[in-house]
Amino acid sequence: MTPDQILTPILDWLDLAGVAVFALTGALVAARLNQTFVTMAFFALVTGVGGGTVRDLLIGAPVFWMQDPWVASVCFGVALIAWFTPQRWWEGDGIEYADAAGLAAYAVLGSAKAFAFGVALVPAAVMGVVTGCVGGIIRDLVAGRPSIIMRPELYVTAAAFGATLCVIGLSLRIEQTVVWSVAALAGFTLRAAAIRFGWA
Amino acid sequence: MTPDQILTPILDWLDLAGVAVFALTGALVAARLNQTFVTMAFFALVTGVGGGTVRDLLIGAPVFWMQDPWVASVCFGVALIAWFTPQRWWEGDGIEYADAAGLAAYAVLGSAKAFAFGVALVPAAVMGVVTGCVGGIIRDLVAGRPSIIMRPELYVTAAAFGATLCVIGLSLRIEQTVVWSVAALAGFTLRAAAIRFGWA
Amino acid sequence: MTPDQILTPILDWLDLAGVAVFALTGALVAARLNQTFVTMAFFALVTGVGGGTVRDLLIGAPVFWMQDPWVASVCFGVALIAWFTPQRWWEGDGIEYADAAGLAAYAVLGSAKAFAFGVALVPAAVMGVVTGCVGGIIRDLVAGRPSIIMRPELYVTAAAFGATLCVIGLSLRIEQTVVWSVAALAGFTLRAAAIRFGWA
Repeated sequence: MTPDQILTPILDWLDLAGVAVFALTGALVAARLNQTFVTMAFFALVTGVGGGTVRDLLIGAPVFWMQDPWVASVCFGVALIAWFTPQRWWEGDGIEYADAAGLAAYAVLGSAKAFAFGVALVPAAVMGVVTGCVGGIIRDLVAGRPSIIMRPELYVTAAAFGATLCVIGLSLRIEQTVVWSVAALAGFTLRAAAIRFGWA
Repeated sequence: MTPDQILTPILDWLDLAGVAVFALTGALVAARLNQTFVTMAFFALVTGVGGGTVRDLLIGAPVFWMQDPWVASVCFGVALIAWFTPQRWWEGDGIEYADAAGLAAYAVLGSAKAFAFGVALVPAAVMGVVTGCVGGIIRDLVAGRPSIIMRPELYVTAAAFGATLCVIGLSLRIEQTVVWSVAALAGFTLRAAAIRFGWA
Repeated sequence: MTPDQILTPILDWLDLAGVAVFALTGALVAARLNQTFVTMAFFALVTGVGGGTVRDLLIGAPVFWMQDPWVASVCFGVALIAWFTPQRWWEGDGIEYADAAGLAAYAVLGSAKAFAFGVALVPAAVMGVVTGCVGGIIRDLVAGRPSIIMRPELYVTAAAFGATLCVIGLSLRIEQTVVWSVAALAGFTLRAAAIRFGWA
């Protein structure tokens, strides 16, 4: 079996969950800037799929949302929900923790997919960080906001932590589901602690 | 015959016309910022080929201007023309309507090419929008201007309208030339009306 | 022999040297902005590999640092060095001339690799400029600085000069090592003169 056949079913579901959470953060940035629905949909899409798209281009995989009828639709559905609901529903810490979960899932997913495609260890860990962070970086660049990479928060670091654990675990041939769970939990815990305690 | 063999001759000509118009808008942004010729040429190229390049990378097609000796040359020729002619020639609404035509042609071309490469319906429509808008977005980002995606105009919406009509028509197996003409005309009309009546 | 087999050994070493110099300029930008180590490492990587990555995606080559265990590690090693040494070590003209050498090497390397992959002449020269300049452009965009493409210096021009000489030489079937040396020296001389005499 090719890497695709083994990993696709699980990774696709993680992709879809991460896509939805990131798409929501994108749509909310557009909403705060009082943009039209089309711009909100654009931000939802770019933020939702940006990281995974850059990862797939770099590792030479087919871009994950091209052949898939659901991913782009999920982004637009999220934009619709954000459009028709009051912004205050989405303020507060809930969205931050959801973003932390998406970041951790993506960091692990991205590095695992890169590993499965034969990428060397260090760049495979980088692919996890790219998958988790690049969508948000593009969102912030296009919106003209200081990008997450420049803000003094434990954001990229949390992604790097999860991705590095994942690559180390996989290279030691530890059971995949164990590696994924531990790495994702570690990345999430670090990011969540940074949110909770205001770590910079 | 592969999708390439069927669509290439027609799509290549549309590509070249769209490239020239977009290249001109890029060169003019650089001219307004009093840049050197090299920077103008860079902006002409990035704006001219940016959208189609991102589309080709995403759908897994060879990047359209790599094997083609003409596309990059057309961009540099346009930059030369913009360099040696007075800027006021290019002010006024003419260039705006030409850009509207390029936008509509690219939106249809982009979604049709994605459709021909087996991309699912929703992402295929997105590819039309990407083809039409991404060149301008990169141009504005690099120039430090608020990007078209953030301005309250019917720009992205017009591209989305043309691209969506095109994908719906093709998926209903309506005759290609009919679909292309109707979709491109619809996208152009919406954008032209927005320019004419100042719709926001 | 495929283009890969002929060119890879030489081009890989040039790549690694250029990567290190560009990575250093990226890390120093982050250092001046008082960023964390993770952000410095991110900037080192993006600046070091950005240009070559975009080139490889455009010409359809596997991205050069994916299968290679060294490239990303070199970037992170450079970030470590920049982190633990005083910034004033890296101020002054030394780093500027090193960057000029990297720019010239990359411009030649990029256009030669594109030429070897069958890219047409004009886009092959463009690939040289892309390889030399895109890393710095992404660095400046993400850092929120005016990008090199907008500054009135002979920077892009020097890359274009070296890349154009290289493509002309290769298309005339002149001996490769001669073409590379002359083109890289010409590009470096132009950039160095611009630094030395403050040409704009």
